[in-house]
Amino acid sequence: MDFAQRLQRLGTETAFAVAATAADWLSKGNEVFPFHLGDLNLATPANVSQAMAKAVADGRTGYCPNAGIAPLRAALAESIGVQRGVKFGPENVAVQPGGKPVIGKFLRSVMNPGDEVLYPNPGFPIYESQIEFNDGVAVPYRYVDTTSGFQIDIEYLESKITSRTRALILNDQQNPLAAEMTDAERDSLAALAIKHNLWVLADEAYYDIRYAGTSKSIVSLPGMLERTVILYTFSKKFAMTGWRLGAAIGPAELVDRIARLNTNEESCTTQFVQWAGVEAITGDQSGAKQILDTLRTRRDATIKGVEGITGMRVHTPNSAFYIFPEVTEAMARTGHDDVGDFALAALHNTGMSFCNRRHFGRPFEGEKGNYIRLAYSGINIPEIERGLKRLGEWVSAS
Amino acid sequence: MDFAQRLQRLGTETAFAVAATAADWLSKGNEVFPFHLGDLNLATPANVSQAMAKAVADGRTGYCPNAGIAPLRAALAESIGVQRGVKFGPENVAVQPGGKPVIGKFLRSVMNPGDEVLYPNPGFPIYESQIEFNDGVAVPYRYVDTTSGFQIDIEYLESKITSRTRALILNDQQNPLAAEMTDAERDSLAALAIKHNLWVLADEAYYDIRYAGTSKSIVSLPGMLERTVILYTFSKKFAMTGWRLGAAIGPAELVDRIARLNTNEESCTTQFVQWAGVEAITGDQSGAKQILDTLRTRRDATIKGVEGITGMRVHTPNSAFYIFPEVTEAMARTGHDDVGDFALAALHNTGMSFCNRRHFGRPFEGEKGNYIRLAYSGINIPEIERGLKRLGEWVSAS
Repeated sequence: MDFAQRLQRLGTETAFAVAATAADWLSKGNEVFPFHLGDLNLATPANVSQAMAKAVADGRTGYCPNAGIAPLRAALAESIGVQRGVKFGPENVAVQPGGKPVIGKFLRSVMNPGDEVLYPNPGFPIYESQIEFNDGVAVPYRYVDTTSGFQIDIEYLESKITSRTRALILNDQQNPLAAEMTDAERDSLAALAIKHNLWVLADEAYYDIRYAGTSKSIVSLPGMLERTVILYTFSKKFAMTGWRLGAAIGPAELVDRIARLNTNEESCTTQFVQWAGVEAITGDQSGAKQILDTLRTRRDATIKGVEGITGMRVHTPNSAFYIFPEVTEAMARTGHDDVGDFALAALHNTGMSFCNRRHFGRPFEGEKGNYIRLAYSGINIPEIERGLKRLGEWVSAS
Repeated sequence: MDFAQRLQRLGTETAFAVAATAADWLSKGNEVFPFHLGDLNLATPANVSQAMAKAVADGRTGYCPNAGIAPLRAALAESIGVQRGVKFGPENVAVQPGGKPVIGKFLRSVMNPGDEVLYPNPGFPIYESQIEFNDGVAVPYRYVDTTSGFQIDIEYLESKITSRTRALILNDQQNPLAAEMTDAERDSLAALAIKHNLWVLADEAYYDIRYAGTSKSIVSLPGMLERTVILYTFSKKFAMTGWRLGAAIGPAELVDRIARLNTNEESCTTQFVQWAGVEAITGDQSGAKQILDTLRTRRDATIKGVEGITGMRVHTPNSAFYIFPEVTEAMARTGHDDVGDFALAALHNTGMSFCNRRHFGRPFEGEKGNYIRLAYSGINIPEIERGLKRLGEWVSAS
C-alpha cells in the first residue's frame, strides 16, 4: 500500500533520538544526566489538579464548545490582554490541546501553497516541518552571537522577504537559544511585518518563564494587534506539559477559522482540563511562583557549572529554561570536530545527555561555531552539579 | 488580512446550528427535548475517573510518547484484536485525542491531491470536509431504505470507483442511519477494496454500542488487515466524549506515519487520560454495561414513541444510538414540504429538537423521502416519552 507523497515533507523533532540514545545508555546501567529534556520534572500546582477533580465530579466529562469553555476563553482574554496591554475578548481565544496545535492551525489558516513563511533557525523544528507539510516554503532567518547574547539578524531576515512572503514566525524567549528581543529588534520586526503586510505567529510559550526584567509581546506595538496570533500554553508556567492545554489568541476573524479547524480535527479540548486551566489562571499563583523559583536556582547552577568548564562560552539568559553554549574549544580538546560525535562521546564518558545545534534546523552555509543545548527543566540541582563537574573533568583531562 | 484559500473547502458540523436554535428556544422559557445531541448525558464509570486521579497523584502529568503510553497501546492492541479475531501489537496503535483526529490523519497519510475518496452520505459530515480540505475529491456513496433497514447501495458505490479512487470510508453501525452491514455487504465491500487496491478507514465508533447480535469488522476478512485503519474511540462505550481519547489502529507502517503527525500536531494525548483509558479497557466493565443497558431502554422508548406517531416510519436498529425515521406523511399533515421547516415548526410547537437528513450531507439528485434523526443518548426516558407524545399530538391535530 502506498502512502501520501506529502509525508516526504513532514519533519519531526529529531531531539527524540537523543532521548532514545540516553535511555539506551541508562538501561545498560550507566548514570545519565538528562539535559536533553524539554519537559519539567515538577508537579503541577495542587490547586490546579484539585480543580480538575472537582470538574470531573461535577460531570464536566462531555463535549464542550469547539473554541473552548466560556470561562476559560474569558480568563485567557483578560489575563493575556492585561499582561500585554491590549484588549482581548473571548472571541479572540480558541482553546487548543496544547500550544503546538496553534502552529499548524495558524499556517493552514493564512498560508496558500507556495507562500513563503519566515521562521527562526536555530528554532523549534516543528515550524519548518509544518510550513513544508502544509504546502508552504520555509524560509529560515538566523541569529548572531553578540557579546550581549543572541540577536536576530534583522538585515538578513529583511533580505529574505519577497512578494510571496506571507507570515513571520517569532519565538521571543527562544528555544533553544533563550534569546530575547531588544525593544529595537521588536520595533524593527513590527515595522517589517506592517510594511510587507505579514501575518505574525508570536510563539510566547516562555513568556512567563522569566527570572529578571519584564516580558514584552510584539502584539503590543501599534498595527500589530490585527496581524498577530499568540501561541499560548499552560505547559511551562504551570508544569502542565502532559495535560495538553493551550490557546490561539488573535483577531476574531482568524480565531473563528481556527475554531472551525478544531471542529474538524479534534472536536474540542478535554473539558475538565479546561476547567483546571481556569483555576491555573485565576486561582492561587503560589504554585507557578515556586516552579519559577526552582527553575531560577537550576539556571544559576547550570550557568555556574558550564562557566567552570574549559573551552565553553555561554550567555546567561533571563528567561526560558535553556542555555546554548559554544563548545568548539572543548570539542577540540576532546578530539572532536563534529558536534554530534562530541555529544555522543560526552554521554559515554560522563553520562551528560544533551541536544546540539543540528536538532534545531539545518545549519546555514558558512555558519560558524559549534553549539549544544542544555535544558535544565527536567533535572535537579545535585545532578546538574555532578553532571557538569564530570563533563568539565573529562574536557580538562583530555 | 487575507486568509488561506483552502479554508473555503473546510466544512463543519452543521448540526451545531440545531443546538444553537434549541438553546435559543430554551432560553425563552420553553421546554426543549434534546434529540439533536450526539453526546451522552451519562457519567463516566467511577473506576475510570479514579484511575485518572491516581495517575495525576502519581505524577503522570508530563509529556509521554507521541504514539501513546505503552500500556494503553498494548491494551488496545489486545482488546481490539481479540474482539475482531486478528492479531495486533502495540506497533499497530497510535493513541489520539479522540476518534475524530483519525479521520484527518488517515487522509493526510494516504491521499494525494486529486485522489478520490468514497464516503457515506448520509454520514458524519467531517468525512467530506476533511477529504476536500486535504486536497482530495469527496465522492459520496448512498444507502437504500429496504424493508429490513438501510443498506449500502453497493452497485452505485462500485460505479463511482475510478483509477483515482484511493480510499473507502466505512462507518458500520452508522451515524445517522444506525445502519449495519450484512455479511454479504461486508464481503462485497472487502472484495472491491482488494480489487481496486483501496485503503479503508473503518470508523467503528459504535462497535460496542450494540443491543442484540454481534458486531463484526471488515478488518477480519482476508486481505483487509494490511489496508484497514480502525477508528477507535472511548467516547461512546464509556461515556467519555469530553475526555478526548481514541486511537488509530492499523498497519504498523501507517501507524508510524500517523504517530509522526501526532508529533507535529499535538505532541501527545493528555497523559493521565491515557492511564484512565487503560482502566476503562482492562478494569471492571460494569460501568460500560450499565451505559449500554440505559441506552437500550432509551432506544425502546424512542422506537415505541415514534411508532405511535401518525405518518412516521422507522426501523429498529440494534446498534448505535440514533434512529432515522421517514416523515414525509407527518410533514404533509402539518403542512410542510421542506424537512428543515418541519423541524423548526416541531420545535416551536412541541419543543422537540432534532437534526434532519441535510445535516449529514447534500441530498443526491432525485433522492426520495424526508428523514429526521433522533439521538437518544442525551435524553432521559420521561423526556423521551413526553417529547414524542407531544410530537404525535401535534401531527395528529394538524
